[in-house]
Amino acid sequence: MDMNKFENIEGGVCAAKGFKASGFYAGIKAYMQTGESAPSVPGKKNDIALMVSDVVCNTAGVYTSNKVKGAPVVVTKRNLAANGGRAKAVIVNSGNANTCNGDGEEKAQAMCDMVAQKLGISSDLVIVASTGVIGQVLPLEPIEKAIDPLFDRLSYTGNVEAATAIMTTDTVKKEYAVRFTAGGRECTIGGMAKGSGMIHPNMATTLNFITTDCAVSSEMLRKALSEVVKVTYNCLSVDGDQSTNDTCMLMSSGLAGNAEIACDGSDFDTFREALYQVMANLTRMLAKDGEGASKLVTCECTGAPNLDTAIIIAKSVIRSPLVKCAMYGADANCGRIMCAMGYAETDCDVTKADVYYISRAGKILVCKDGLGLSFDEDLAKKILTEDEIEIFVDLHMGDSSATAWGCDLTYDYVKINGDYRS
Amino acid sequence: MDMNKFENIEGGVCAAKGFKASGFYAGIKAYMQTGESAPSVPGKKNDIALMVSDVVCNTAGVYTSNKVKGAPVVVTKRNLAANGGRAKAVIVNSGNANTCNGDGEEKAQAMCDMVAQKLGISSDLVIVASTGVIGQVLPLEPIEKAIDPLFDRLSYTGNVEAATAIMTTDTVKKEYAVRFTAGGRECTIGGMAKGSGMIHPNMATTLNFITTDCAVSSEMLRKALSEVVKVTYNCLSVDGDQSTNDTCMLMSSGLAGNAEIACDGSDFDTFREALYQVMANLTRMLAKDGEGASKLVTCECTGAPNLDTAIIIAKSVIRSPLVKCAMYGADANCGRIMCAMGYAETDCDVTKADVYYISRAGKILVCKDGLGLSFDEDLAKKILTEDEIEIFVDLHMGDSSATAWGCDLTYDYVKINGDYRS
Repeated sequence: MDMNKFENIEGGVCAAKGFKASGFYAGIKAYMQTGESAPSVPGKKNDIALMVSDVVCNTAGVYTSNKVKGAPVVVTKRNLAANGGRAKAVIVNSGNANTCNGDGEEKAQAMCDMVAQKLGISSDLVIVASTGVIGQVLPLEPIEKAIDPLFDRLSYTGNVEAATAIMTTDTVKKEYAVRFTAGGRECTIGGMAKGSGMIHPNMATTLNFITTDCAVSSEMLRKALSEVVKVTYNCLSVDGDQSTNDTCMLMSSGLAGNAEIACDGSDFDTFREALYQVMANLTRMLAKDGEGASKLVTCECTGAPNLDTAIIIAKSVIRSPLVKCAMYGADANCGRIMCAMGYAETDCDVTKADVYYISRAGKILVCKDGLGLSFDEDLAKKILTEDEIEIFVDLHMGDSSATAWGCDLTYDYVKINGDYRS
Repeated sequence: MDMNKFENIEGGVCAAKGFKASGFYAGIKAYMQTGESAPSVPGKKNDIALMVSDVVCNTAGVYTSNKVKGAPVVVTKRNLAANGGRAKAVIVNSGNANTCNGDGEEKAQAMCDMVAQKLGISSDLVIVASTGVIGQVLPLEPIEKAIDPLFDRLSYTGNVEAATAIMTTDTVKKEYAVRFTAGGRECTIGGMAKGSGMIHPNMATTLNFITTDCAVSSEMLRKALSEVVKVTYNCLSVDGDQSTNDTCMLMSSGLAGNAEIACDGSDFDTFREALYQVMANLTRMLAKDGEGASKLVTCECTGAPNLDTAIIIAKSVIRSPLVKCAMYGADANCGRIMCAMGYAETDCDVTKADVYYISRAGKILVCKDGLGLSFDEDLAKKILTEDEIEIFVDLHMGDSSATAWGCDLTYDYVKINGDYRS
């Protein structure tokens, strides 16, 4: 699928009709350290976000496959199950994952209750998510105090405030939106994401909130989300650690006025392609901002006998610590690529593979039919010194292909994670 | 099983009766760069090793599960299959893995032929192994020139020369031997190992050569080796990358004079325990010398419903990059331990687990019933500042336990692997 098919627009989660957002500095980490609410200093990074839709939305979600699940994941799943997949609001905090701490579920539910009370709606129409340190008690006091300011600040242009609030070790906010046409109406999908470390495939990696005004049934939302997650967020690996709190929500307000997409067909295909563009671009941003990363590294596996094989091979290459170190050092070591393909959990024979390195500086073949080649080391060095590198693998076995997104492994990853809690 | 049950003795692969060894500097890496044999400078680290038994040995081997297999692995498996599991000599080079380079099998076979010719034996009685960079052509010339000096230097005390020759990024040689009694005779098992990076479970990790004078049938050698590999080398993870060349060989000369162990019983149990002690201690050395490691980190999982679950949980914790970084930074982050247990590929419920950190400086409980505790941060820091740390996990579900061995993730790992080939 094409990552650039539709017009890319501004607006993030507020780009689609009917979605307000806001962010605020509640001082959650400061409260955990001092037991007191920090004064609301201007300029402090927001740590709590609110999103409210003008109408109740059809909503689909995918969640972490980690058996240790964050309390907000448990509560959100329960809420959506209770009402058949509908939601009107989202509350998210950073600074504490509200996980493995004993009273997490009551507190996650309390966060939903606070928002529901302000809106005069049922609590099960509220989605809750948390991100940050695991295993510490979440203080509700600063969150309670933040509720009024969050509602005061809600606006149709509050997307940046919200996208900033969900960041942890992220160095940049991640937003993306596209405009497309479905059922003769102009529609929009937009989203925001956070995530930097503890990122690995086989889950809805990180926190992701996608909104659309395109009218889509809950069932078709779920279908589109699961198909697109498989080839975007689940093809992302920063460090191989699967988080406990990963959540990806897709909410449809339906305010674009198109006839609801309730079955397969060209409108559904267009919607899915637009969703792919949003999620693939957010995935790319997440990889590029991986903890300590100095380079975006993607692996495109082509010529695979089927999609699953292409995904497994591409992910195995991207995950390898030795490949990641080689990319950091601009070392065109093709043995490590072959090695990582060889231990990928698939029956596919990778010994006929060709391997190329590609960047803005050029393209070089380093492995042909599974065998290392002599190549121009100077050109290879030039290619790998760029900050966006593609490892291109052709298995010569079929027509399927997939991309996996990752980054290099650097001193800074070790530094950031040597003492995360302080 | 006990890592210290039997008397630990010197002698490595030469400790058991009937095994000679030698090592030599062939200049393989220098030849790859210049196309010429380097002068044999005294003081250069050996890069080729020879081991010869006085008699033909019953021999068992386990090999990498990577689908990209080094040519020496293919040739050694073929040789042992051809003669029903017997061998008389081993030749090993470092500096080039002889893998993914097109003509590797012919060259691995040629190495066997050179040794067989000197000994006047069939080539299939020779085991060959290579370690080093993947994807580059192995030059035979320096190896040919090294054969005579290797045979000249062969001795019953050549174990250190050989153990040094198989090192790559290893900073110390790894040898271990024990003495035990079987069938009323004093027996010995000894071994040497190499390995530092590209180390991960589910294979005979790294290169390992174990010799014994205890008479054991080929079948029972294979049984002992596969049982012990499962709880030693396969419970080792340095970086999650599975090598293409991993080989573990166990050779029995039978010269201790005991009645051959050909079935289960107390002699077999004793042999297996002694083998465990050798392999567990070599595994521990491999972990402690992991690339860039500043700390040995072990995880003991106890209270597991079965052995496989204990192994899977312990390995998942040891492999996690975030746990490894936290150990480097002496950060008692228990959330990362819970997270890594949660994504371990087992159905086991880990949410009732207790987690302790243990070292020479003390023991501290950081997680009880799956929930993070408040704990003495100063004591935790003191415990984690030691250079040997145990993460102790009690699942409270059964009687099985297992240990996994690993190390911390440091700046130096990134540095070493940023430009391995040069």
